[in-house]
Amino acid sequence: MRRIALISTGGTIEKTYDALRGVLENTVSVLDVMLGSLELRGVAIDRVRLMNKDSLEMSAEDHTRIAETVGNVSQARDGVVVVHGTDRLAVSGERCVELLGTPRVPVVFTGAMRPYELRSTDALQNLTEALLAVQLLAPGVYVAMHNTVLAFPGVTKDPALGTFVKRG
Amino acid sequence: MRRIALISTGGTIEKTYDALRGVLENTVSVLDVMLGSLELRGVAIDRVRLMNKDSLEMSAEDHTRIAETVGNVSQARDGVVVVHGTDRLAVSGERCVELLGTPRVPVVFTGAMRPYELRSTDALQNLTEALLAVQLLAPGVYVAMHNTVLAFPGVTKDPALGTFVKRG
Amino acid sequence: MRRIALISTGGTIEKTYDALRGVLENTVSVLDVMLGSLELRGVAIDRVRLMNKDSLEMSAEDHTRIAETVGNVSQARDGVVVVHGTDRLAVSGERCVELLGTPRVPVVFTGAMRPYELRSTDALQNLTEALLAVQLLAPGVYVAMHNTVLAFPGVTKDPALGTFVKRG
Amino acid sequence: MRRIALISTGGTIEKTYDALRGVLENTVSVLDVMLGSLELRGVAIDRVRLMNKDSLEMSAEDHTRIAETVGNVSQARDGVVVVHGTDRLAVSGERCVELLGTPRVPVVFTGAMRPYELRSTDALQNLTEALLAVQLLAPGVYVAMHNTVLAFPGVTKDPALGTFVKRG
Repeated sequence: MRRIALISTGGTIEKTYDALRGVLENTVSVLDVMLGSLELRGVAIDRVRLMNKDSLEMSAEDHTRIAETVGNVSQARDGVVVVHGTDRLAVSGERCVELLGTPRVPVVFTGAMRPYELRSTDALQNLTEALLAVQLLAPGVYVAMHNTVLAFPGVTKDPALGTFVKRG
Repeated sequence: MRRIALISTGGTIEKTYDALRGVLENTVSVLDVMLGSLELRGVAIDRVRLMNKDSLEMSAEDHTRIAETVGNVSQARDGVVVVHGTDRLAVSGERCVELLGTPRVPVVFTGAMRPYELRSTDALQNLTEALLAVQLLAPGVYVAMHNTVLAFPGVTKDPALGTFVKRG
Repeated sequence: MRRIALISTGGTIEKTYDALRGVLENTVSVLDVMLGSLELRGVAIDRVRLMNKDSLEMSAEDHTRIAETVGNVSQARDGVVVVHGTDRLAVSGERCVELLGTPRVPVVFTGAMRPYELRSTDALQNLTEALLAVQLLAPGVYVAMHNTVLAFPGVTKDPALGTFVKRG
Repeated sequence: MRRIALISTGGTIEKTYDALRGVLENTVSVLDVMLGSLELRGVAIDRVRLMNKDSLEMSAEDHTRIAETVGNVSQARDGVVVVHGTDRLAVSGERCVELLGTPRVPVVFTGAMRPYELRSTDALQNLTEALLAVQLLAPGVYVAMHNTVLAFPGVTKDPALGTFVKRG
């Protein structure tokens, strides 16, 4: 059985709705609910709750801390998945490459443009893709989202398309 | 076949998510999608798209316009349902009683604490209740929501409970 | 606070899917899951788990037992809702009228054409309607479904339409 | 842009509910609805509607026809996904290996234990996995389902687990 570490850092994918205040925000993690709705055979997932932030509010220290955590948990695992806000996901991905070079196992970032809490969401698709890609890819740092896998370095978010692309 | 007028004014129930900006807002009406997901037999629904506002942004003129529209459409219908933001729903309800007294047909306001776009929402429940209550009640002005029907005047939103109560 | 008895007898509305055998069947009750997804204020619901049958398999004794149970639980409640398979729902409704005449509180039958377990279902709509109608109607025996309330006796299922109509 | 052929053959994943007869059956394809709910960037999908059968009803000719179609469509594509009933999926997979050896592109079978039409289903997860795996794997014949990818020959369905395993 493969052991996968799943690091949660927040982002749109995990936002929930506060009905009394009428806003979407990062307060509780819905990753466990998402995982509970998937059929995951032959894999053991270790949850690492690192932070729960809109990535627009991440500092340089946050990105470094994410990369260091990736390096630490990768030692005893077969792969690492990181759930992250898309706005600064690429910053954390590049920081992983700077700090870790080629990690000893595949590291796959993912996120979503529409929260899991929405009736129509890309959250489950992207999480499904990350959890499969981490088993099929060679060691390296990647983003998996919208049926596309891209390798760092050189990945950026296209804000108009709402997805990731390779920098030209 | 009964003819029901369905007046939409906006509110949380109709908010949709802008994925690029990351906010819930009143831009398009999702009432037709909601209606399409219900089985409505023996009733003809006339949609009246009056406005699409967060009710916190409604002016005194807006409340009066809603009450006047209720009065107008009630002339040739068997009932009127009004979809409205909950924050100022009671203001429009009281305005209806001031302007119309007891209308010639039942008038039922409804709304939601959680948008229809959310996976977990009270929007369909409340719309279902309003569309049934308008067929069973005597002429008057009401709010139907959360399995409760209350008659105006004297109704207020309890912001802590997130529902409507009779003023003590 | 109003006290409502909710009698479950099975039917399509409660069918669940056995993935290994590939069939929809009445084995466990999903009514509590449905109730958990609704916002029910000001009402206390007492669950009465009477049977869990496809109504095509109900005997004359089953229909009588349902009517007798309705009579018993109506003594200490403000209303009774009965969840029932649609194929023989009208038999139980007529049996209630035969045994109870006009009961002391409203008795509302409901069911569904598509199980709650389906992505697209009329189960929540019909349950919502029954739980509201039982608070608004005069004492009597009714079916509430598809935005329509009909009073027994004289109600029948139209198998081609998949809904209930008054017998001509 | 990668070109993927998506061959549909039926199976539980595509079953829809006939409300009047109360049964789940293979009559219309819901694959297009599933595809419409996913965000698929950088891939062009060619739909090949081959048959719509419960795989328990497939004949030896059906399995051969599926394998031959896989061989044909793989000529001008970067990958092939086959949606198939799980009961006989392994028969079609083995037939592909017999007829095609190692095909020139990856061929990924998938299916579901619970139809897409159910509120709780593995259909979208499995389709998402197949559409990603076909882009990451080396040429060969595989099944992707429940977060696991297995290579033919030597794959079998474990009927008690409701998933696929390598034959020991």
